Amino acid sequence: MDLENILREKAKIFDSALNGNLTPRDPKIFYEALRWIPLSGGKRLRPIITMLSCEAVGGVPETTIPLGIALEYMHNSTLVHDDIVDRDKWRRGLQTTHEKFGLSLAIIAGDALIGETYRMLSYMAPPEMESVTFKEIIRSIADAAKKFYEGEAMDIEFAHRFDVSIPEYMVMVEKKTAQLYWLAGKGGALIGKGTKKQVENMAEYGKLFGLMFQIKDDLLNILTDQAELGKQKIGSDILNGKRTLMVVHALSNVSDENKKKMISIIGNEKAAQSDIMEIIDIFRETGSINYAQNNLKELRRKAKLCLDVLEESESKELLMALADYSITRSY
Amino acid sequence: MDLENILREKAKIFDSALNGNLTPRDPKIFYEALRWIPLSGGKRLRPIITMLSCEAVGGVPETTIPLGIALEYMHNSTLVHDDIVDRDKWRRGLQTTHEKFGLSLAIIAGDALIGETYRMLSYMAPPEMESVTFKEIIRSIADAAKKFYEGEAMDIEFAHRFDVSIPEYMVMVEKKTAQLYWLAGKGGALIGKGTKKQVENMAEYGKLFGLMFQIKDDLLNILTDQAELGKQKIGSDILNGKRTLMVVHALSNVSDENKKKMISIIGNEKAAQSDIMEIIDIFRETGSINYAQNNLKELRRKAKLCLDVLEESESKELLMALADYSITRSY
Repeated sequence: MDLENILREKAKIFDSALNGNLTPRDPKIFYEALRWIPLSGGKRLRPIITMLSCEAVGGVPETTIPLGIALEYMHNSTLVHDDIVDRDKWRRGLQTTHEKFGLSLAIIAGDALIGETYRMLSYMAPPEMESVTFKEIIRSIADAAKKFYEGEAMDIEFAHRFDVSIPEYMVMVEKKTAQLYWLAGKGGALIGKGTKKQVENMAEYGKLFGLMFQIKDDLLNILTDQAELGKQKIGSDILNGKRTLMVVHALSNVSDENKKKMISIIGNEKAAQSDIMEIIDIFRETGSINYAQNNLKELRRKAKLCLDVLEESESKELLMALADYSITRSY
Repeated sequence: MDLENILREKAKIFDSALNGNLTPRDPKIFYEALRWIPLSGGKRLRPIITMLSCEAVGGVPETTIPLGIALEYMHNSTLVHDDIVDRDKWRRGLQTTHEKFGLSLAIIAGDALIGETYRMLSYMAPPEMESVTFKEIIRSIADAAKKFYEGEAMDIEFAHRFDVSIPEYMVMVEKKTAQLYWLAGKGGALIGKGTKKQVENMAEYGKLFGLMFQIKDDLLNILTDQAELGKQKIGSDILNGKRTLMVVHALSNVSDENKKKMISIIGNEKAAQSDIMEIIDIFRETGSINYAQNNLKELRRKAKLCLDVLEESESKELLMALADYSITRSY
């Protein structure tokens, strides 16, 4: 099984659904801004997990498409606005929405994508909704979104602090990254009419997948070759002052001298590439990279355990493979 | 009947509901940013119209509270983000959210208010939903929000043009201001189980009310005494380059010489207060202020006609009085 090929095939279902739904209309520039990030690629992992989770409990995978697309809209809305917050200039090899269309259009494009989330849900056909009420789905997605904003607010606040603890970091990532995956796993199993235990476990699997995905993303930002990173610079998270698991771990395990160095470089837009490389060396010295990698392995173990409640099937195997992929993937 | 007193009394219902729903939680600064504008006062006209519209067709007014609050959340989300787009520093006598809390928190506070809209709707109790399906309500609000963003995008684009036509202007205002009022009128009548004709007419009443409200707002910006405007300056819309009905009308009825003057002053942040006053004089010369005022009277006539489908009642009288208020109110 070539997982990456299978993922690319499955992603196409959602690429074309999104392309169809986001038809350009007037005002033209607004719809261009709206389409920019959602149609720029993306792995579509949330809808894929929703679909697999439904199928793995014996449901019809296609019935999850509206929820899957809704999750993509919500996710993409957060990307558009998060790029403004982080002042990022590039995403998926393209200019970010605010760089390309200006701040005003980027704000309302993100807003409109939030609206599309709920409009899409309003088109869910009744048959899929038997076991779960529509209101519960609406509330779950609104709850997940709210947790994202709380996590984003924590992330913004962390940027002013050098004493963020590992538990605080984990709460932030759980809110900011893991919630939509949690809902992907849960929603798929609910729509597929899984047992209570299956629904719980698939929600937990989704959450763990989200945590792994974020920690791996942070590792890739410092361990990937420049050639593969494209326009992004190695260690750009350090420049941006992002509190990653490595930063948080290193800060509480570093010598006083190196701590001063970290404080002077992390989040310093004027830092040179050699400064960044020094910080990455400090991560190695403090064992922070190992710490993150061990963390990933432990999360993967737990994620795979969640799948014990599923019968053997191709979709279960894919979910197993996805757990591996989330920590072995390259950029 | 002292309408303004009655409105203030009714607004309190929604003030306290919003205060209760937006309880401060962690992260504290995020919830402070979220509460800032929604709890800063506001006339609560959308929920009041929803409630009156329900009562006027024979329904139980309290059953509209969740929809009314949802409309307030949506409206407030647009205010928070619109203030960023317009670079406004003041609202309701307070700093705008981005001025007080910074751009990042203002963006996510607005996003979270959009989410609160739908969460609130997910708590609508079944009895109120008999005649209208919950999905239709969700879709209607998502549609209204989308039209708002389209209108906002038009407004952003208008700021670069001196050839906006009156019909273009009316489409923009209909999308940006009238849609949520349209839904307020419609939703109230639907929840109150009005006849098809009553629902149609109340939707139309809401739309006309929204148009009047916006045009009157634009007039007040140039015709109110400085003392009453507080921190806002007379004619600040001119400084901000806003295309109001007066600007659009004047531009197509002005001498070439004065047109040049208009183009050099409108949207010019460096314009002096005397320049602004000159533009207001041009509005008078071109009959643009009269034009807007006559427009208001015609809209009011149509709005009152919509109410013909209602039995006589106190709420009908209040809706009549509201139509007058929308064009006679002071700041």
